[in-house]
This record gives sequence, structure tokens and C-alpha cells, in this order.
Amino acid sequence: MIDLNKSQIQDCFDLQTAARAIENAYIASAEGRVQAPPVTYLGFEDANGDCHVKTGHVQGTEGFVIKVATGFYDNPAKGLPSSNGLNLMFSATTGAPLAILRDEGWLTDMRTGLGGAIASRALGVDGFKGVLIVGTGLQCRFQARCLQALIPERKLSFTICGRDAAKAETACAELQGDGLSANTATDLEAATRAAQVVITTTPAKMPLIQREWVTPGTHITAVGADSPGKQELATDLVAAADLLVCDLAAQSLHHGEFARAEAEGRRADEVIALGHILSGAHPGRADNKQITIADLTGLAVQDAAISLAVLEARNTEHSSN
Amino acid sequence: MIDLNKSQIQDCFDLQTAARAIENAYIASAEGRVQAPPVTYLGFEDANGDCHVKTGHVQGTEGFVIKVATGFYDNPAKGLPSSNGLNLMFSATTGAPLAILRDEGWLTDMRTGLGGAIASRALGVDGFKGVLIVGTGLQCRFQARCLQALIPERKLSFTICGRDAAKAETACAELQGDGLSANTATDLEAATRAAQVVITTTPAKMPLIQREWVTPGTHITAVGADSPGKQELATDLVAAADLLVCDLAAQSLHHGEFARAEAEGRRADEVIALGHILSGAHPGRADNKQITIADLTGLAVQDAAISLAVLEARNTEHSSN
Repeated sequence: MIDLNKSQIQDCFDLQTAARAIENAYIASAEGRVQAPPVTYLGFEDANGDCHVKTGHVQGTEGFVIKVATGFYDNPAKGLPSSNGLNLMFSATTGAPLAILRDEGWLTDMRTGLGGAIASRALGVDGFKGVLIVGTGLQCRFQARCLQALIPERKLSFTICGRDAAKAETACAELQGDGLSANTATDLEAATRAAQVVITTTPAKMPLIQREWVTPGTHITAVGADSPGKQELATDLVAAADLLVCDLAAQSLHHGEFARAEAEGRRADEVIALGHILSGAHPGRADNKQITIADLTGLAVQDAAISLAVLEARNTEHSSN
Repeated sequence: MIDLNKSQIQDCFDLQTAARAIENAYIASAEGRVQAPPVTYLGFEDANGDCHVKTGHVQGTEGFVIKVATGFYDNPAKGLPSSNGLNLMFSATTGAPLAILRDEGWLTDMRTGLGGAIASRALGVDGFKGVLIVGTGLQCRFQARCLQALIPERKLSFTICGRDAAKAETACAELQGDGLSANTATDLEAATRAAQVVITTTPAKMPLIQREWVTPGTHITAVGADSPGKQELATDLVAAADLLVCDLAAQSLHHGEFARAEAEGRRADEVIALGHILSGAHPGRADNKQITIADLTGLAVQDAAISLAVLEARNTEHSSN
């Protein structure tokens, strides 16, 4: 059984391998060729903590994943990170344990970054360069780095906007340090109007992005809303969009950005699975005037895919050594 | 993070520590002081395999468990065991991974053995000695060894009965090798009539034990029925019993021995949780004439309890070295 800690995972990680695996997982998910049972939840009220267990398998791949993610929100006071977790891989042909990836949540952050980047690349207008990232946390970094890595032929121009200007400056400086083109903005309306692609990464419970700010041709990727009550996009913006895309309709309509869309007259069957766009089964953006929105809530099969990609990259590295 | 393989787990395993932990888990479960979310299931049709993921926590204990159990039934043809699995422990106060117990299913067999033994000890007539075990597989061994270990002051007399007389002889010889008193029987009716405690451990789909064979004072522990359609005890035997005990009523009534009892006029609220008997909240057996039945389908909190017991025993061993 392979046992890798976070830095070992990072050492052998290959972003392009992982991106391809996650694209395949989205397509398989859209086509029903996956297993993704309901998420298991445990709550620890006394310790202000919780645990989610996700399991997933892409049919035809060699392994399935059991991902454990914990959040214990009093940990920082003890000098510990609030998030932790690991991915366990098992063989889908013998049931034997294959690997424990003690990533402390890093693979989840990375698959979320890659998922957003895959959606932004697929749905942004041809040749887009101007990308606004709303929010200054971990996903600000992951979304920017992953998107630029998936579009190496074109230098993107990132604008970072958050409630805390100092945090935006810090994130911007980090991205510049990685060689990305980045600046900050304090006027969210102006920044939204100027952007071709908007990526929202916040835990907002009130809509941040208003309908009238979004100009024709804009694509929005929303990765922040991951539980009921969170909402980054104005409901009338969702209602007016030309194309609604999601990773899993059941999740987006339950606790994602599209949870309120049905009340505004959108039908659930109008929401297109990202996998159908990636496979070409749906044409995606029709022209450079459409407003498109992708809402990603996260799939267990992304966890399975990225975990297998780690093992694949590790094997390649080993055999080339 | 502690990482123990099967033999390391067996080396530090302390049966009495584990039995106490499991008793506490039964009591906590009966009193509602546990978390045990629905079991997650994955199926792998092409490989003739499946996977169950159970999660559990006994409130107030330091860790929760995520147990993965796989069964791939074509493995023996490849020279591999059909069952595999592991228990993962996480801190209930910080969410950090505590241990991976790569037990290959041994801890599940042991907690099933201990659970049955705890029930048999609690519900058998005072001073019982004659124990019939029906079935000659792994649980035949675990039930006998655990029950004798929990009643060290009294030499029990085990009778092993199974469809395959040669397998019964093998099991019997193994138990004798462990210093237990054991013999075999081929006439199940006579053996049942003679026994004070009957332990059924088979995957039978037709009732094995008939009502008229069971004499007053007999206690029956059924551990075999673990999925819908399995049944070891005649429905009219269950209907006529003086006391019905289970680990979890929802499971026993869904896919255990009591699944058909309601149709025979037994009420679900007549089924007493084993934990209430262990705690003294329910008096258990009233006299030496009652026929009592315990149906055990297995609890995730047993897995949590036995895993913590392994860590406790290991710590004790380490500190005494």
C-alpha cells in the first residue's frame, strides 16, 4: 500500500495529468458512468467540528476513492489547521487498498481549482484574457494558477477583488511571484464590467455579483457556494443567463447557485452538465454575446480522478528514474 | 499517524479491553449517544465485488472510525482473499487522522465474535455450559473463542454442527487446539434440543432452527443474517420467543432475523436493545424457562470501539515496555 504525505504528493503531482483525469471524470459523470453514493456526514458539536466522507468511482478506472475531509474550527486556537483529511484508494478489481494519500485537504483544493479552470476555459469567450477573481482565499490562488496552467499559450490578466484590500494585495503578490500577471481592484462593479471571465470563490450568503454589472460575453465560474444558504450570484442574474452549466445538477439545485433559479422560472433540465460540454455532446457557448454561468459544487469522482492521477504521475516518475 | 497491519494489530490486541469497549458502545447506542450515519455502498459488477463504508462515533470517546470492507468474490481464483478492508481512526477533537488499522477484515470478525459473546453471556441461563454453534466458518471460531474468553471461570462445552461434517471436524479440532472443550454433531434437531445456548453463524436463506426443537430456557444468538433474504430462525420461533433482543432495531427489522416477526404479530417496540440489558435498564432474561433471542447485525460503533481498544492496548503495551 502506497503511503504519501502532503509534500510527497506535491512532489510527484502533475497538473496536466490531473486535469485530463478530471475532465474524464466530468464526462463520465455526465454520461452516468460513475458511482457517487450520498455523502456521509458526522458532526462534533462540542469540538465545533465536522467530517464529510465522499466515495466515488469512474467506471473503467482501476481504483475508487474514499475521501475524508474534516473541519474543526477551533483548531487554529490550538495552533492546528482547521481542515484536514486524506484520500484512500482501493482497487476496483480486487478490493485491496492501493494507497493512502495524506494530503491534508490539498488534493481537494487542487481538484476544485482544476475543476473551475476546466469550466472557465471551456466557457469563456474565444481568446479571453481578462479574468476577475472574487475572493482572496486559497481558491483565489488555485483558480488563477490552474487556469493559467491550462492555457499556457496565452498570458491571462488576473484581477483580484475582495472585501479586505490587504488580503487582495497579498494574493496578487503571490500570483505575481509565480509569474502570473495580476493586479487588484476595489470596485467590484467596475471590475465585473471589465472582466471576460469572473470566478467567484467566496462563502458569501448574500449575492455579490449583480445582474446589471455583467456585460454580454461574460462567463462566470462560481466555486464558493458549497452548502445551503450560500449564494454568490444574484438570483436574477442566474435567471437571465443564456447558459447554465454545473458539475452535478442535483447539488447545484440543492445547495449551489442554481438553488433559487427554479423559483425564478428556470427549469432544472435547462442546466447542462459540464461533462456534456467537454465531450461535445452539448455545444456550450454559442457566440461571443452570451452570458454563461458554471456552478461547481464538487464531485467525489474528481477526488477519485485526482488520486489516480497522483499514482499515475508517481509511477511515471519512478519508472523514469 | 499510527499504521498497523493485521499481525501488528493481533500482537497488541487485548480481548478484555475490546469487550469492555464494545459493551460501552452497545449501551451508548441504546441510549442514543452515538453517531452512525447510513452505510455507503459501492458495487463492481464486472469484478463481482462490492464495498461497504461504515462510519461511527461513540459520544465522549476520543476517535471516530471510518471502516472500509470490500468483498471481491472472484479473488480466490487469483490467489487472493475475497475479503479485505481497514479501519481509519480520526480524532473527534481535532479531526486529525489518528491511525490506519489495516486489519484485512480481522477486526470486523473479532467485533462480531465479541458482540455475539456479550449477548450470549448476558442472556444465557445462569451457569450455562452447553453451547451449540451452527455453521463451521470463521464466526464459528470467533464466537466460541470470544464466549469462553468472556467466561473464564466456567469451562463451556461447545458442539459444532454444520452441513459439511468434515468442516465441522476441522473447526472442532481447531477449538480443541486452543484448549476449548468441543465436539461435533450431525443431528441439528437433537443438538438444538440439548443446548442451553445456540449461536447461529450461517448465511442461510431458509430457517435452520425450528420452533419445536427449542426447549425452555434456551438462548439463541443469531449473527448470520446480515442482508435481506437471509434467515436462520423459523419465523414462528421468533414469534413465540419470550424476549427479542437486537443491536439495532432498524437493522434487525429490515434485514435481520426479526424482519418477518412483525408479520407474525410481534411489535417493533417489543425488540429490546442489547445495550439496555447490559446497562440494567431492562432486566433481560426473567427466569430459567424463557426462550430468548438476540439478533446481531453489526454496528459501526462496534468498529469504532474495537479500533480505539486497539490503540489503547497498544499504548499500554508501549508504556509498559
